[in-house]
Amino acid sequence: MTPLYEGKAKRLWATENPDTLRMEFKNDATAFNGEKKAQFEDKGRLNNEISTLIYGFLEEAGVPTHFVRKIDDTNVEVKKVTILMVEVIIRNISAGSYCKRTGTEEGKVFSQPIIEFSYKSDELGDPLINDDYIREMGLATPEDLAHLRASALKVNAILIDFFAKAGLKLVDFKLEFGRLVSDPSVIVLADEISPDGCRLWDLKTGEKMDKDRFRRDLGGVMEAYQEVLGRLKSNS
Amino acid sequence: MTPLYEGKAKRLWATENPDTLRMEFKNDATAFNGEKKAQFEDKGRLNNEISTLIYGFLEEAGVPTHFVRKIDDTNVEVKKVTILMVEVIIRNISAGSYCKRTGTEEGKVFSQPIIEFSYKSDELGDPLINDDYIREMGLATPEDLAHLRASALKVNAILIDFFAKAGLKLVDFKLEFGRLVSDPSVIVLADEISPDGCRLWDLKTGEKMDKDRFRRDLGGVMEAYQEVLGRLKSNS
Repeated sequence: MTPLYEGKAKRLWATENPDTLRMEFKNDATAFNGEKKAQFEDKGRLNNEISTLIYGFLEEAGVPTHFVRKIDDTNVEVKKVTILMVEVIIRNISAGSYCKRTGTEEGKVFSQPIIEFSYKSDELGDPLINDDYIREMGLATPEDLAHLRASALKVNAILIDFFAKAGLKLVDFKLEFGRLVSDPSVIVLADEISPDGCRLWDLKTGEKMDKDRFRRDLGGVMEAYQEVLGRLKSNS
Repeated sequence: MTPLYEGKAKRLWATENPDTLRMEFKNDATAFNGEKKAQFEDKGRLNNEISTLIYGFLEEAGVPTHFVRKIDDTNVEVKKVTILMVEVIIRNISAGSYCKRTGTEEGKVFSQPIIEFSYKSDELGDPLINDDYIREMGLATPEDLAHLRASALKVNAILIDFFAKAGLKLVDFKLEFGRLVSDPSVIVLADEISPDGCRLWDLKTGEKMDKDRFRRDLGGVMEAYQEVLGRLKSNS
């Protein structure tokens, strides 16, 4: 058996249902566009559990997603989508590439969320692009982008609250969207939402509870992911 | 005498009029954010003549600019402005950083002009930013940006035609804007427009007639600038 697709942190497999896939969470961690690599035992399970909790919560809140059901520890069943080659990053507090790009210190609370789009391309390092680029590259229509912006802001509002109840600040996060293969007019939230793609800071101590622990060699990577899962579970 | 400001290619000096400055075009050429440097005899004069021709033409076409008058070969008198820290780049054909960022080949004609904003910061390498960044960095208001976009598109339409009559394709170019010190509610076109900040290709041969000759060591840099000036002169 070979997967239909293998990415840095997940594999996609066919199922018996032509409209769904099995998404498998791997234990691989990568950072800096794949330059830094490691394996963490249990990472796949933790991210699957966290992402499943979040997707369930978002579906209940009326956000259409690709999520169908959890299969087992490291696998979920998802609707087949064509992924949009535009990643959506939502920022509530300055961190990461925003700080590098603008010379801003980490931790500045924005007056409104910042939304940015990047071109989903490992080869090019997922570069920041703007709406005009996206139009000319044929990655999405202006109507698609309006939809992505509105969805991203809605998800952000829901998740800020969701994480706050677990004592966590949602600093920034990445979303991916896809068109349903069964109905390409429908764009749904796809991929995963986990500490791999979110910056989460402890509300009281400011401690980093996300992949920055791996990026910056802070140690305790899986302990942080486990703590995030534990807190989310006890609040849902 | 010391200048009020010295940039990579120009100096600003006080005049007897408190509302104006003298802008001096230097012979210095820089590329790759100042990493590559050279001096070209006559560059200051050529850019001053080209920019003066273009600003005169834009003023006649109803575009408000900082331009007052040409003083001599390398100096113009300009209205005093507070420069907006946002550079506006207009692209009609793919080239330069657009190609590097997106993996697109040079020479793709866009269906509509692409407008992008960069943060005017030598230290950070004038990074691409989006409207949300500009709002949170306090560089310009959304209303300012709407004005910059509309002005940029107007200037682009005028200059495409202006250069076409001189047998030149306007591939892309950079604009800077400033608020009049005498009336900060008014934003005008500032800085210069010359082959230093425009990509110009010969309409028939496709030959590069701009600073890319210096960036790429193609030779004949000043010959190209002289040719641009000569063609613009014989058409105005």
